[in-house]
Formats: sequence, structure tokens, C-alpha cells
Amino acid sequence: MVKVGVLGATGMVGQRFISLLAGHPDFEIAALAASGKSAGKRYEDATTWYLNDAMPEEVKDIEVIETDPAKMDKDVEIVFSSLPTEFAAKVEKAYAKDFVVASNASAMRMKKDIPLVIPEVNPQFLDMIDAQQKHNNWDGFIVTNPNCSTIAMTLTLKPIFDNFNINRLYVSTMQAISGAGYNGVPSMGILDNIIPYIGGEEEKMESETLYLLGSLDGDEVKPADFPVSASCHRVAVVDGHTEAVFLELDEDVDIEKVKKVMSEFKGLPQELGLYSAPEHPVIVREEDDRPQPRMDRNASGGMAATVGRLRKDAAMENSLKYVLVGHNTIRGAAGASILNAELINKQIL
Amino acid sequence: MVKVGVLGATGMVGQRFISLLAGHPDFEIAALAASGKSAGKRYEDATTWYLNDAMPEEVKDIEVIETDPAKMDKDVEIVFSSLPTEFAAKVEKAYAKDFVVASNASAMRMKKDIPLVIPEVNPQFLDMIDAQQKHNNWDGFIVTNPNCSTIAMTLTLKPIFDNFNINRLYVSTMQAISGAGYNGVPSMGILDNIIPYIGGEEEKMESETLYLLGSLDGDEVKPADFPVSASCHRVAVVDGHTEAVFLELDEDVDIEKVKKVMSEFKGLPQELGLYSAPEHPVIVREEDDRPQPRMDRNASGGMAATVGRLRKDAAMENSLKYVLVGHNTIRGAAGASILNAELINKQIL
Amino acid sequence: MVKVGVLGATGMVGQRFISLLAGHPDFEIAALAASGKSAGKRYEDATTWYLNDAMPEEVKDIEVIETDPAKMDKDVEIVFSSLPTEFAAKVEKAYAKDFVVASNASAMRMKKDIPLVIPEVNPQFLDMIDAQQKHNNWDGFIVTNPNCSTIAMTLTLKPIFDNFNINRLYVSTMQAISGAGYNGVPSMGILDNIIPYIGGEEEKMESETLYLLGSLDGDEVKPADFPVSASCHRVAVVDGHTEAVFLELDEDVDIEKVKKVMSEFKGLPQELGLYSAPEHPVIVREEDDRPQPRMDRNASGGMAATVGRLRKDAAMENSLKYVLVGHNTIRGAAGASILNAELINKQIL
Amino acid sequence: MVKVGVLGATGMVGQRFISLLAGHPDFEIAALAASGKSAGKRYEDATTWYLNDAMPEEVKDIEVIETDPAKMDKDVEIVFSSLPTEFAAKVEKAYAKDFVVASNASAMRMKKDIPLVIPEVNPQFLDMIDAQQKHNNWDGFIVTNPNCSTIAMTLTLKPIFDNFNINRLYVSTMQAISGAGYNGVPSMGILDNIIPYIGGEEEKMESETLYLLGSLDGDEVKPADFPVSASCHRVAVVDGHTEAVFLELDEDVDIEKVKKVMSEFKGLPQELGLYSAPEHPVIVREEDDRPQPRMDRNASGGMAATVGRLRKDAAMENSLKYVLVGHNTIRGAAGASILNAELINKQIL
Repeated sequence: MVKVGVLGATGMVGQRFISLLAGHPDFEIAALAASGKSAGKRYEDATTWYLNDAMPEEVKDIEVIETDPAKMDKDVEIVFSSLPTEFAAKVEKAYAKDFVVASNASAMRMKKDIPLVIPEVNPQFLDMIDAQQKHNNWDGFIVTNPNCSTIAMTLTLKPIFDNFNINRLYVSTMQAISGAGYNGVPSMGILDNIIPYIGGEEEKMESETLYLLGSLDGDEVKPADFPVSASCHRVAVVDGHTEAVFLELDEDVDIEKVKKVMSEFKGLPQELGLYSAPEHPVIVREEDDRPQPRMDRNASGGMAATVGRLRKDAAMENSLKYVLVGHNTIRGAAGASILNAELINKQIL
Repeated sequence: MVKVGVLGATGMVGQRFISLLAGHPDFEIAALAASGKSAGKRYEDATTWYLNDAMPEEVKDIEVIETDPAKMDKDVEIVFSSLPTEFAAKVEKAYAKDFVVASNASAMRMKKDIPLVIPEVNPQFLDMIDAQQKHNNWDGFIVTNPNCSTIAMTLTLKPIFDNFNINRLYVSTMQAISGAGYNGVPSMGILDNIIPYIGGEEEKMESETLYLLGSLDGDEVKPADFPVSASCHRVAVVDGHTEAVFLELDEDVDIEKVKKVMSEFKGLPQELGLYSAPEHPVIVREEDDRPQPRMDRNASGGMAATVGRLRKDAAMENSLKYVLVGHNTIRGAAGASILNAELINKQIL
Repeated sequence: MVKVGVLGATGMVGQRFISLLAGHPDFEIAALAASGKSAGKRYEDATTWYLNDAMPEEVKDIEVIETDPAKMDKDVEIVFSSLPTEFAAKVEKAYAKDFVVASNASAMRMKKDIPLVIPEVNPQFLDMIDAQQKHNNWDGFIVTNPNCSTIAMTLTLKPIFDNFNINRLYVSTMQAISGAGYNGVPSMGILDNIIPYIGGEEEKMESETLYLLGSLDGDEVKPADFPVSASCHRVAVVDGHTEAVFLELDEDVDIEKVKKVMSEFKGLPQELGLYSAPEHPVIVREEDDRPQPRMDRNASGGMAATVGRLRKDAAMENSLKYVLVGHNTIRGAAGASILNAELINKQIL
Repeated sequence: MVKVGVLGATGMVGQRFISLLAGHPDFEIAALAASGKSAGKRYEDATTWYLNDAMPEEVKDIEVIETDPAKMDKDVEIVFSSLPTEFAAKVEKAYAKDFVVASNASAMRMKKDIPLVIPEVNPQFLDMIDAQQKHNNWDGFIVTNPNCSTIAMTLTLKPIFDNFNINRLYVSTMQAISGAGYNGVPSMGILDNIIPYIGGEEEKMESETLYLLGSLDGDEVKPADFPVSASCHRVAVVDGHTEAVFLELDEDVDIEKVKKVMSEFKGLPQELGLYSAPEHPVIVREEDDRPQPRMDRNASGGMAATVGRLRKDAAMENSLKYVLVGHNTIRGAAGASILNAELINKQIL
């Protein structure tokens, strides 16, 4: 068993980390770090638990420590980070001197030598780690996962990207409130309402998607080269982001062939049989009215993206459009970091 | 005062008709028609009133009549129709023998000689009426208004279309539950959920928009000639459709110029000072997080479309994107038919 | 393994039955009955699946049969019924000639010789079965479970009733939409709204509660003899009924003692170790703001009632009040029938 | 025209004050005070406007001043306060030296000589003002209005209290999110959920109700003497509190007589024809499923309480129960203070 720690352990994504790590066959929760006001308390006493599943027994008595690498037990090998961006920017590097940092924070994404990875999409980007360790003179390293909306969409794009040429992509999201944290969205803002703006989200979708579908050329990432345009909106859904995707390809495609490549798509986590890997990263549904977030967000334990309404436009040449749902705090956050860690554990540690 | 009747008077759009017609300076409600089981009852007794504003006193004692042109008082000049599609297809023509039919039903939209009109966008299409009357040998005629999602979007497109060349359009909608009628969307389908499908809606948006922006060549409509692709979704909002619009123009535009042409846009209803005409059909907001349906649906009594987040993509050439909100049962339904009738009353009757 | 059938298998409670029976150690789903239009189809083809958990693989290929005892495989021993009331009144007796009928329908509740049972509360009422079989000359029999709101409340009342004397009870419910079936509550009725009426619900709570806490005197049930007053309301919650309970006892109680008797309460299912029995039927929480339906409905797999805010009034003598949450379609419906069947299987079959 | 000021002008209740005062025939908004960070800005620039109705033109250009009596224009006669409790406790007395303070804050409620008033219920309590001015040596004075849940309930109780003897009262509330302010209730707390606790609310309902129905004996209030027990819950409704009321009277009442006294109830504001006074403070509805907050909160401009489901219990002697809806930020807050001010303006100033 690999001992792991969680940074930001009392927050919403921190709780997802704990929920997913409890009972994990390879990882054992050995340390929980949070802000100074929680440090020193039992985890159960320090935390207002937000998830529908009960707090795992095994973490209740763990004493919360400060978010300081010096306080982290040296037996820990991997630390999962769900720290706020600015704070992550400060401390993740300090942890990387000694630990593997699997981070869900956006601070270090797409930075030089720091891989941004979806294991089914660009596992080869982990090759950057050597350079990262060498340049920084670290024993550990940092690996990051993308933004929640980007992960679900890129999973569904990968089989299309591999089989067809994408000329352009438009995406309109309908995102769940849990993505903003427990106190992020006031109920007065979302009941009988939509908030048509999520700070920084469109920029992340437009850049991270192309990075992930890009290629690694020595130390440099060469992003995929089609334009992406996103419009991001918050709606009254608890968990599960829904995204309407419009593609222009460079040929007229057969919808059945698209469904086939999506349904059959598998990546390295499936080959390696990683614990958190869904059997099918992309599930294709045929019903007119699916995917729906409440019905489909938990598919494969929340680790698969569900696609539906695959269709073409009569009037728009070489078009392909569909709707997808992905669980934003499982596949889109904690589960993404954990799958990265499982891959690293199998191939690098 | 012109005497008017309402067909489908007990339904949701029928109630909106009544609510908007109560106190109207030019129209007087003289007849309310509904299904056989309501006929013969006082309107108040026949109706479960759904609107937040109370039922107007003036209609409570009106005896509901059957949906049969023979039962309609001959003094009535205009009948407003919110009949279900299939039923409208059968009876609207019968009413047109003697009455002006201002219809919100989709049955007769874009049929030969039957104008589909937004008064600010294509009022000249009313010129079809002569041919309609002649070909059918009717004393009355039928005029229709577009689908709810189409009206709000086309209002916002008209000033862009008049000032720039649109190459293509993608639109993703987040539509209110009231659009499906009181019993249309089960709460189990929409609480903590999204339904990513509305039957026929995408096809209507893709065809009606181009018709409305088209030109009239003799008796024939020549639709605008850019491709439109829509993806339509139902969300947990009571009233007010929200739409994310992505445009490709044939030049790089100045956003401030776009805001200016949208803000300053006025049409014939504004020139003529029609009673229900909003001062500005399109309201442009500057805040990052607007428009929002609960906040903006009632702008100008629900008759204006509100636009926000006007911006361009860094990577997508000649792009323009924005979000709009329009009230689906006012400007998108009953109010649209009434504005059509006001224009007809001013120019034709 | 006891072979079981489900009547009303395609509806919401029917789906809960299937979900809870899949993987059950003692019961094997052998027959699924539904209305004529579903009969003859594969279950997967006949059903729009509403639950968040996926349809169990083992039922997908079962051919749905008509709701007719003659069509039911004779190897089946227990049939679970979630039939609509009027239909249940007609057919459950016919099934009882040959099968054990564990019914969630209200049709036969509190009828002569037909036990209405919560296994933790009044398991001795199963003694009525002999008389039922004899009087009707049936080989099978019918056992029923209470209304969803009643079950959760009565579980929490039982330890109080056993330890103190209740003088009167007022209860105000806030009930989930799933209790009305998938199409039961229109979204227009519940979004940003409350419906302060649920037909028949108050009467059921007021009568069933006293029956369940009553005693069996020969063939006759002698109900508990304090007055109960209920006010029932529908709110925008998917699953989980919340109830505010106000009690007048005949003495001033120590709140800590009440918590203790509630927390320590166990019944026959716990003694017998029945598969679906929660370890603690009543869970007492100390936080100010619990129980909450989204957080607490799934406690112990949805089979426990969660209680919080146990307190007394300063001004109201001998008072006790609290709030409870119970899962309405698990402990309040399908799970209740299954626990009844587990008890019958252990003690009678 | 009486010049008025608003304290806490940028908050939610402050915005309601402004919305209700705009166009008021007797009051003119002359000053808007808010926290230091807003002071010096135009009101439109200082405020994120939350109401569905647009910000009134007349306040947009008013320069916000600090919450300091010395900054208040001496021509102002009445200041409306929606300050947070602790801050109100500090500054309202300072304003009372020179101004009439009509306060919605809870800080000074039920304090010696400071009247807590609902004009239809206990207008005679304004007689305390003389003593208040004398004891404090103030030229102005303070008058307060009750908690939002209390106002609506007490309006409905007053005609019952005047015509029958109440032995006890239980009330369970389902309160709207707007009662907690814009940022008060996180959406994660209320979507598909209920929060069964509102700090201090039950105590306020239990004490203020009896004070309001009490009598004034010299300088002392003698509260009504029946016990009140409240259980308060937050639900997913934007505006409008719903309350289930259970009464024990000292006789068996005729429901039709109760409806009559409630429907016919009028108070001093109705006699005096005050501008904001609803024609009927209590509206009685006969439908099974009313009142509903979205449908009934705006009755009489949000100033009336709507009652329905008036009924007795079969088993509970001398019982009476009903459900009520009142608008929490109009009749329950800003509108309450304004009606108090209208009464003061008519009778005292």
C-alpha cells in the first residue's frame, strides 16, 4: 500500500478525494492537511461533511495537519492537492521537493515540464517528469489534471480526433453548482435562474483541450491546431456538467461510425486495468433525451463521460454535434487526480 | 375598441393572452373558446389559473364557448390562437373565412401565403395577406409568429444581419419549463437535472430564423442563406429562455460597434408607437454575469430580448458570441401574436 | 433462494423493488408483471428507467408478463406489489390464493385480518395471517406496509411510545416529488413553489400511525389512543421526506434520555439480522442543521430514519419536538415491503 | 411629500425599500446610506441590484452616504433601517435623536418603550412613543416591525384571536431563501434539499406573536397568554414564506365562521386608507391546493397574507388548522416598515 496525503482535505474536492480513496486497494490515507484553523483537530471535528455518502470511518480520527511540507509524514509518497489556485501556486512546488504531487489545482497546469494529463488521452506527457525533476532538482514532482469541463469533453473528443480531422469546435456548457465549492454559488443566484458566466472557465476549455490533444516534441507540447470557442453557464444542478458540442470536421462522417469509435475507445488505464479506470471512458446512449446529469453523472462510478444525441446538421457541411455529461467532482476533479496517481504508481514509482 | 377572441383560452399561453389583453387600449376581450368540457362554464370556473398575476376581473364571468367558428360572435375581428398544433391545423383555416387569426401555433408557419412575422424584423411579409385571401377566398386571414426560442434570437440577430454578413450560426439553448405547458415537464425530469432534447425545437430554430431574415420576392420568401445549427435543452427555470449564440461573420468586427447597432435597433412597431412595442427590442448589458432569466425576462414587460457577454474569440476568426434571454410566453408567444395584431390593426384593418 | 415476482414492475416503486432485490442474498427475481402494453417485451425495452443507479443486468432480458395470477410462474413464492390503489384492490386478492403478497399499495391496509406491519414496530401483527388464510381459504396471504410518511415517523415514535406516554401529536411534512410517481408532480407546480396538499396523505398518517402503535387483541387491532394531526406539503426535493413532529407527553422529559432511547432502539429485524434491516432504525444527529434530505435520506442504504433538533419548548408544558428525514421510496415503499418479506421468509415460510 | 432615507440601502431589504418607495405618493427618497465602501458612489454604481423589477430611475444618481446620523440631510424626517442586527443596535438610537426610525432590524424589538407594531394588529402600541422620547430625550423615535414569519402569521391570527380563545399554537414554516439575504443560503444547501434550522427564528415567532396580540397597560405590554411552538425550515423557494398552523381553541368552531372573520378582517390601515394597506389583509382561498408561494406571494402587491386549507381534525378536539403564505421581503420586511411609517405620518407627524 502506498501512503498518500490530501491537501485541502476539508473542502468539497478534498472530501471527494477521501471518499474515493477510502477502500482503495493501492492507496492508504495517511495524512490530511488543511488550513490552520483545522490543524490539530480530529478530521471529523474539523469538517462539515458535504457528500451524500457518509464520511468514511477510517479518516474520522486522523489529526489534521497544517499545509506545510515539513509537517507531512516522510512515509507518504503521493499528496493529492485540491488547494485554491493562489495557494497551490505557492506550496505545491515545496511539496514536490519530496513528494509526488497529483494536483487538481489550476495553478501549475500547462507550465513548462509539468504534465497536464488525462490517462486515456495523453499519458505520454508523463515523460516530462524527468526534465521537471532535473531542472528543479526535486525528488518528487508535480502532475496536474485539467479543468472539470475540459476533462469530460476531451475524453469524448479523443476517439473523434484520432479518427477524423476536426476543423473547429464550439461548446456551450451547463455546469453544476458543486463545481464552485460549497459556498460558491448563492441560492439566490441559481434558483429559477442561470448564471451565464464562470470566471476563467472558457479560457481553460479553449486552451487545455488543445494541449491535451497535442503532441509532445522533446520537452515542448505542440497543441492540436483547431480553434475552440466555449460559452460557460451555471445551472441548477447539484453534480454533473452537461455540454453541447458542435464540431466541424473536414469530411462528412457516418454517425454510426462515430458512435462505434466512441463506444470502443479505450486508453492506457483500461489496458493496464487501473482500479479507477472505467471499462469504457465514453458511454454512448441512443435515447433522444439522454444524457441527463442526474441520471448519467454516476456512470461507472462517476469516471465515464456519457454521450448522446449524436447527429449531423442538414445545412451545416461536415458537421457533427452531441451532448455529453460528466461528473465534475469525480472524473472532473478528485477522480482525475487519483487516476493520474494510479498510472504513476504503476509506471513510475 | 376592436373586439377579440382567444382560442385555447384556458391553457398557459391562453392565460398569457388574457393577462396581456386585459386593460389593452385597443383590444377588448369579447370571446373565450376552449375545449368542450369547458364550454358553457364561466371562465373562472373552467380554468385553473397558472400565472403569478391574478386573473383579470373582466374575464371571470365570460361564458366559455366551443372552439367552433360558428359559435364566435360576428363582432369579433381578431382571434388569437394558442391551440395545439394538430388542432390548429384543422380549425384555424375555418376561422380565417371570417376573422383575422393571429396564431401562436406552429401548424401554419411558413405555409404558402401565410406570413410568419416579427414586426421589428419582417413586417413587409404582411403583404402576403392579399394573395392569401384571394387564393382561399377568405374574408379573414392568418398571420403567425415564430417559435419562442426563435423570436428572441432573431430580434438580436436582425441588427447584426443588417450591418454585417453572417457566415454561420450555432446556438445552444437553456429553455424554461413553461414552454412545455403546465403539465409538459414532470418535476422528476428537471429537478437537479437537464433534459437535453425538445422535440422539433431545433428544426424550428434552424428554419424559421432564416425565413424571418429572408426577403419577399413576389409571393415567395427567399430565406437568408447562412447555415444555422441549434442544440436545445430544458433546464430548471420557470420562465425565460437563455441562449448562447456563436456567430462567424465575414469580417473581424468591433464589439463596441455591435453593441451600438443592437442597442440602437428599432423597427416599425417602435416607429408606429404600438402599445406592446418595447422602446428597445434589444437591451445590451455590460455586466459579466448578465443576462439572467429571473432578472431579465421581464425587461420591458417581457417584450424585449436582453443580450450580454458580447465578445470575440481569440482563436476563431471573425467570431462574435453572446448570451441572450427572452421571455418565452410573453415575447415568445402571446405577446408576439398581440404585437402582430397591433400592427395589423394599425396598417390593415 | 426464494423466487419472487414484482407487480407494477415498470413504475417508479417497481424499479426500486428491482434495484433493491438485485443481488439480494435470499430472493431471486423470477417474474416481472406490468400493464398489457409492456407484456411480452424484454424488461429493458418496456421500461424507461428512472433511478440514478443503472438497471441491474439480471432483469434486462426478463420477459414482462401481464398482471394476472394465472401467468405467474408457480415456483414464485412472494410477489411484491406496487400497483395503483384501485387496481391493487382488484387483483391482490387473486394473487393471495397462491402467493404471498407483500404490498406497498394502500388498498388493503387496515382491512380485517390483513396485517399492516413495520417489522421493528408491530411484527406480532403477522399473527393475523392464519385467520386471513382461513377466512378466505387462501394458500397465500397479503401483508401490507404503511404510507411513506407514516413509516419514517412511526419508526421514530416507537421508542418514545415505549418509554413515555404521548398525549397528542402534530406533524407537518415536506415531502419529496418522487412520492407521486414520475409524472405525478408537474415541474410548473414545484419549481420556486410548494404545493400544500397531498390527497389522502393526512388521513393516512393520522390513522395508520395509531394502528401500528396499537395492540392486537385476538383478531382485532386496538389502536393507540392519542390524537394525531397532520399537515402535508410537497416541496422541491427529489427523494426523502422531511417531517416536523411536535409531541405533548404526560411528563416533562429529559432530552438526553429521549436521544438515548431513540439511538438504542432495535427491533426484531435487528435481532434476527435480516438482510435489509439497518443496524439502527433511528439515527440521532446532534448538529443544529440536520437532518437534511439530500444528506440523510440514504443513511443505512435508505432504511433508517434520521432524527435531529430534539428539543423542548420553554412555554409548552411536557413538550418534545424534532425533525426527521426518511427515504420515501426505499424505507417508505419498496424497502418496507422487502423487509416485511424477509421477516415472513424467516418466520413463516 | 415627506423626505425619507434608507439605511442599508444596497442590501436586499434595502432594495425592497427603494422599490416600494419609488413612486410613493407621500414619501420621497432623499438619502441612501450604506457601508463605507459604497459611500461616495452613485447608487447605481454601488449596488448589485437583485430584484426582478428594474432599479428605479430616480435613485440611480443619488450619492450614497455613510451610515452616520451626522451625514443625514436634516430635511429627512423618516429613516428606514434594514441594518444588520448588531450594527442596528449601535446606530438606530443615534438616528432617533433627530429622526423617526422605522426599523426592520430585530435589535430594538420588544425593548422598553419601543413599539413593535403591525398596523392592523396593535396600532395602539404607538402610544409608547411619548414615553420613549421623554425617557431618552429624543426629538425622533424608533418603531419596529416583527420578524417576517411572525408578521404573516399574526395577521392571520388576529381575527381568530378577536373572535375565539386560543389555547395553544403550533407552527411549522417553509421559508424562502431571500429571507437570509443574497449570500445567506448556499445553493449546495438548498437544491434538492431542506435546511431544518434558521437561527433565532423559532424564538422570535414564539415571543413576538404573543407581544403583538397582547395589550398595552400603561407603559407595559402584557403579552397574550397561550403557548406557541415553532419549527422553522428553509426550502427551495425564492420569495414567500409558507406556514402550517395548528391551533387548539377552547371551543369547537364552525369553519365557515372562521373563514368569514378572516375574510372580513380589516384594521386601522384599511380604515385610514393608507397607501400600502391591502384591501383585505387576509385572503381566504377555497382551493384544495392553495396557498402556494409562487402563486400567492404577490397578492395585493405582496402586502396580504393568503390562507387556505382551513379545516378541523376529526380526532383533535377544538382544533383548527390552516396553511398561509406571506411575502417575506414585502409584507414581512420593507413593506411592513413602510406601512408603519404611513400610519405614523398620518397620525403623529
